[in-house]
Amino acid sequence: MKQKRFFLREDQIPRQWYNIQADMPVKPMPMLNPATRQPVKEEELYPIFAKELCRQELDTGRRWFDIPEEVLEQYRYYRSTPLVRAYGLEKALDTPAHIYFKNESVSPVGSHKLNSALAQAYYCKKEGVKNVTTETGAGQWGTALSYAARLFGLEAAVYQVKISYEQKPYRRSMMQVFGAQVTPSPSMSTRAGKDILTRTPNHQGSLGTAISEAVELARMTPDCKYTLGSVMNHVALHQTVIGLEAEMQMEMAGEYPDMIIACFGGGSNFGGISFPFMRHVFSGERRTRFIAAEPESCPKLTHGKFEYDFGDEAGYTPLLPMYTLGHDFTPANIHAGGLRYHGAGVIVSQLLKDGYMEAVDIGQHESFQAGVLFARNEGIIPAPESCHAIAATVREALKCREAGESKVILFNLSGHGLVDMSAYDQYLAGNL
Amino acid sequence: MKQKRFFLREDQIPRQWYNIQADMPVKPMPMLNPATRQPVKEEELYPIFAKELCRQELDTGRRWFDIPEEVLEQYRYYRSTPLVRAYGLEKALDTPAHIYFKNESVSPVGSHKLNSALAQAYYCKKEGVKNVTTETGAGQWGTALSYAARLFGLEAAVYQVKISYEQKPYRRSMMQVFGAQVTPSPSMSTRAGKDILTRTPNHQGSLGTAISEAVELARMTPDCKYTLGSVMNHVALHQTVIGLEAEMQMEMAGEYPDMIIACFGGGSNFGGISFPFMRHVFSGERRTRFIAAEPESCPKLTHGKFEYDFGDEAGYTPLLPMYTLGHDFTPANIHAGGLRYHGAGVIVSQLLKDGYMEAVDIGQHESFQAGVLFARNEGIIPAPESCHAIAATVREALKCREAGESKVILFNLSGHGLVDMSAYDQYLAGNL
Repeated sequence: MKQKRFFLREDQIPRQWYNIQADMPVKPMPMLNPATRQPVKEEELYPIFAKELCRQELDTGRRWFDIPEEVLEQYRYYRSTPLVRAYGLEKALDTPAHIYFKNESVSPVGSHKLNSALAQAYYCKKEGVKNVTTETGAGQWGTALSYAARLFGLEAAVYQVKISYEQKPYRRSMMQVFGAQVTPSPSMSTRAGKDILTRTPNHQGSLGTAISEAVELARMTPDCKYTLGSVMNHVALHQTVIGLEAEMQMEMAGEYPDMIIACFGGGSNFGGISFPFMRHVFSGERRTRFIAAEPESCPKLTHGKFEYDFGDEAGYTPLLPMYTLGHDFTPANIHAGGLRYHGAGVIVSQLLKDGYMEAVDIGQHESFQAGVLFARNEGIIPAPESCHAIAATVREALKCREAGESKVILFNLSGHGLVDMSAYDQYLAGNL
Repeated sequence: MKQKRFFLREDQIPRQWYNIQADMPVKPMPMLNPATRQPVKEEELYPIFAKELCRQELDTGRRWFDIPEEVLEQYRYYRSTPLVRAYGLEKALDTPAHIYFKNESVSPVGSHKLNSALAQAYYCKKEGVKNVTTETGAGQWGTALSYAARLFGLEAAVYQVKISYEQKPYRRSMMQVFGAQVTPSPSMSTRAGKDILTRTPNHQGSLGTAISEAVELARMTPDCKYTLGSVMNHVALHQTVIGLEAEMQMEMAGEYPDMIIACFGGGSNFGGISFPFMRHVFSGERRTRFIAAEPESCPKLTHGKFEYDFGDEAGYTPLLPMYTLGHDFTPANIHAGGLRYHGAGVIVSQLLKDGYMEAVDIGQHESFQAGVLFARNEGIIPAPESCHAIAATVREALKCREAGESKVILFNLSGHGLVDMSAYDQYLAGNL
């Protein structure tokens, strides 16, 4: 019988995260203080983030960071996540390609986001922080942070992009079950929110607006730090546990990926699965393709400009060197709320610029078509975000069929879509 | 570091189901043909169920049934499910009890129901059946059957209890994503449905009405069989894979349960986790308590009568010897739709009568209170049905605290509640 799933033993779960910055042939350009245009120093980030996270953010020399014992203990509640051979999907596509996926949807909160939420909540707790704030789009990050905050005894305040708050009431409920305060953004609870609503009274919200509000609340509240679910280097660092596990699991399966595919919002699940494999490309040991799948309607990698830009709507963040559509870009209201962000993380932007990775943009219809095909053949209903990775995988698998090539494809199933079923309804009704 | 989760290797997954009927000190009384009042013969069930399922249903002699290779292959896509030590819940309750749960929510469709759906769809396929019908309450069984049918190339028609159809649109969507036809019941598509709607135009539906419709459709359609997600002996048989795995996993954990707890609708998840352990009680080897947790509003085990009754509203099924509230009982509209059934399975009814198990009834508020406590400490949001098992576990764990006893409790987490978040909303708003 063919083995379908590959797990690690608890003692094999990685004990360190991989910092790709240490190995990058061209280091990322520095973040800039918008007032001085000087590189941001670690201390300048302290008012926003926990100190250890600031250290991780800017460290370009240290290759490995130890995962704290308390975080590791929580990882063991759901990790290793399975590496799965998608025999069903292969058969449906009649492709000679070997398709594997890393199933991050099995985390208690349903996505990879918990990998970094646990780390961020832990460091905050360790530094005496009492409250954490954040923003959430689709709600995956907000759910993860709400649960992680609860585990480490912190209060969580989440600004949820207004359109998601209204379209995805189940996500809001999940955060509330975990005990978080959830506010639709833009709101009247912050200056940034008020300014936006004054300019645009019916503003539907975006990750950019919600970030502004969460950052402002963190700055104005004692013992309070801001946390972020993507874009930042330290988030991708924590997510490398995905790729480090996958590397060992692919070895158990006796194969090595020719290409690695992930959906792309700010880069956290993409970086998480890709970066550990990329170090073998830097070293010349391997030739692997890395493909980021972004939505057609928010195409910063395929159609954005590489330049310094703010990470949020109000301009509270440092200036980041990145592929961006402009910090005031308001993406179309697609269902993949987690991919509606105007910019790409600094590391990924540099890697794309230097030709170490590729990007493709995927239309909404194609993404759901791939998602339904996957559900019917693998049983898991994927998150609208993850559908983009599946669609890119389907494209590559069909190319393999045409060429008669048995390439090995690994994609990241970043989350399940069980609280996104209204999106599937609309797809099945022919409205997407 | 304390081990949290216990998995089996793929080669350790059970290859046989356990038929408790072979070991019961008092065999269940026979099903009766309502016309003749004579015991039902295997052949009389052929118009409704696949033949192999009829055989399994009535076999009181054979202890083990081989799991077909094709079903085993599908089991290996999600089994073994983890046995988890609930350290978080223990700490929150400050109890010396050791609490374990079998996490059936990790199946692709989110509940234990897939264990039997795969078997039933396989046997139908093997016998040349083209279409399967069924009913679903909360939607867990319907989702499982829809996916299993798709895997084995069958068309599925699901009658969903009307109130669930309206309150749980995400469940309907999931079935449709898997390609099933979903009809709210009672409907005008069957004689049984028409009769019910004529008598009670605003009938909200019950499992009893939906079963009548599904059975009628199966009888009237060529190459079509009916399938059922609980109550029947063959369903509990398939579910014993849960308890057989748990037995090995508890051994890995170095403990043996003093009590085993599961929520109770018709008995499928309760029987699944309990029956394999019960054989050691029959043999005198072990003394284990088995506790079925049913809702206060549908209390057939704690307040029903043991008598012959129909399994459905219209009286299409054989007469079953069981604890029942009457086949025309319409339960209150609680959120645990899967527990809203008027009768208990034949085997469980006999076991309760003979004192091998206990039952407790749990109010809706208490069940959600326990569910939220569990979610905040274990990260998984449980199905409203499973909340009843958790509430019964909490009661026992608190008794252990009072008595200072370190008893070992094992409960079955039959499914997650991610598509039941509106129920949690109402609980958090103080409306339950």
